[in-house]
Amino acid sequence: MQVIDRIKAQGGKIISFESFTGGLIAPDTDPGNPWRYKFTWNPRNVILAGQGTAKYLQQRKYRYIPYQQLFNRISKITVEGYGEFEGYANRDSLKYLETYGLEGVSTMLRGTLRNKGFCSAWNVLVQLGCCDDTYLMEGIEALTHREFIDSFLGAHANFAVEEKLCASFGLSSDGEEMKRLRWSGLFTSDRIGIHQGTPAQILEHILSKKWKLNAGDKDFIVMWHRFVYEKDGQSKEIKAQLAVTGTDEINTAMAKTVGLPLGIAARLLLEGRITSRGVVIPVTSEFYEPILQALQGLGIQLKEVEV
Amino acid sequence: MQVIDRIKAQGGKIISFESFTGGLIAPDTDPGNPWRYKFTWNPRNVILAGQGTAKYLQQRKYRYIPYQQLFNRISKITVEGYGEFEGYANRDSLKYLETYGLEGVSTMLRGTLRNKGFCSAWNVLVQLGCCDDTYLMEGIEALTHREFIDSFLGAHANFAVEEKLCASFGLSSDGEEMKRLRWSGLFTSDRIGIHQGTPAQILEHILSKKWKLNAGDKDFIVMWHRFVYEKDGQSKEIKAQLAVTGTDEINTAMAKTVGLPLGIAARLLLEGRITSRGVVIPVTSEFYEPILQALQGLGIQLKEVEV
Repeated sequence: MQVIDRIKAQGGKIISFESFTGGLIAPDTDPGNPWRYKFTWNPRNVILAGQGTAKYLQQRKYRYIPYQQLFNRISKITVEGYGEFEGYANRDSLKYLETYGLEGVSTMLRGTLRNKGFCSAWNVLVQLGCCDDTYLMEGIEALTHREFIDSFLGAHANFAVEEKLCASFGLSSDGEEMKRLRWSGLFTSDRIGIHQGTPAQILEHILSKKWKLNAGDKDFIVMWHRFVYEKDGQSKEIKAQLAVTGTDEINTAMAKTVGLPLGIAARLLLEGRITSRGVVIPVTSEFYEPILQALQGLGIQLKEVEV
Repeated sequence: MQVIDRIKAQGGKIISFESFTGGLIAPDTDPGNPWRYKFTWNPRNVILAGQGTAKYLQQRKYRYIPYQQLFNRISKITVEGYGEFEGYANRDSLKYLETYGLEGVSTMLRGTLRNKGFCSAWNVLVQLGCCDDTYLMEGIEALTHREFIDSFLGAHANFAVEEKLCASFGLSSDGEEMKRLRWSGLFTSDRIGIHQGTPAQILEHILSKKWKLNAGDKDFIVMWHRFVYEKDGQSKEIKAQLAVTGTDEINTAMAKTVGLPLGIAARLLLEGRITSRGVVIPVTSEFYEPILQALQGLGIQLKEVEV
């Protein structure tokens, strides 16, 4: 909002806003984890992420991406100093047009960042139907991890689960997707260990065994924004990025970036420096100016580049 | 039920039951229609067909096919005298286990029949998100058919809708899928012509222009059942099939096969030959024996082959 308000105050007209954020793990955490991901947010929401249809605005046209295409339709996002990430569209970018004061822009897209290779492996689970949360599976008490996966594949007596999966989705048995799925324990003969569940609940339970933050693990938050605007007849661009690493598995970057702004706002309220009352969102300078300033003192700062 | 009851009465044990039915068009109707399909049933239900997850039992294991895989996972079903059809699984085969008295079977699968090539072309619309009925699209008053399709594809200024579609789904521009989609008018610059709608409602509206039964069109119902059972230590198989062609676009095979059994049952009730009362389904011999006999006189008869 700070950048949007500044562009407008200087007489610029915003043409395009794209914003991607990811909650990942720090580059030096869990080196063997090929997903470069662990649960640092509500695990259930991670499993259900993207269900429904993503809606956004691109070059003045409304665009839609259904769940079954979401993890295929990724953008490459380069964050200076941290390399390349995969970005997929969030559910509804359109509802933020008004919130951000961006009515009339040509492009409005909000999305989620993941490390390279995450999306195509996750897409296998989406395509299989493992993220479905709408029905309880039958007889899961007796099932193993590999039988869980097998139940989404047809019966072919002479082929192993891994072979059927590779054949169904055109995967190489030693490729990047299978490496990630195998590492997640999805093909082991361990009992699932719960009595009842939807596919999504069972998948969450299995993944939790590997995707839980362990002692010493550090998470990592990365944000990337791009603003394109016109000023004095010229097209200009500002990029703004943020990267925060967690201190440990308790004091996570997720906890800091979610909790500190709220804590700071509470202090500002107590000090009488916030006069707005009721349920308000911090999109006005009354909030973002002192909060962003205080966050800077805590090592959380957006870095801007004007192109 | 007649076959199931007979096998049981003769001391047989049913191992497997598969049943597929399709409401199609007669081979000599609408020769230029590459789908070999028109709406002969509630059009809205045709568009939404298969949403959710198909559940069935195969070789003693519960199997699941999510919507995004349904039209990929087809069986070839040969109906004697009518050639080969494509069969996809219906939503929930399991709930018929009890209705049909088939508890304890190894395989239970109910499905839908379509003519060859239908499923892979329909799958393009499913994958695009055109069958989604969960949200209203934005600004459709101004959209053409081809802009409707384009809104599910990303923006690439230098490529036509057809090119983006082929690239996204690995289709050949003169292949069978594109032939069907093109014939359906999905790439024309005609206005959609409705003011508001979900993707599913818009798709139904566009397809209705081509998939409406015209004067003289005849529809076609085909059913195929396979029963595998054990008797005296031997494995045996019965196939039963039914094919009915409509008289014209009003007196359809769909109307006959749905309406005549009900009419016959009403007559049997009036004649005092049905003594059951309340809401009952016709799975007992009190119903199916006289109804099947009367249908035979009207040219509707299952043909059985014992293997």
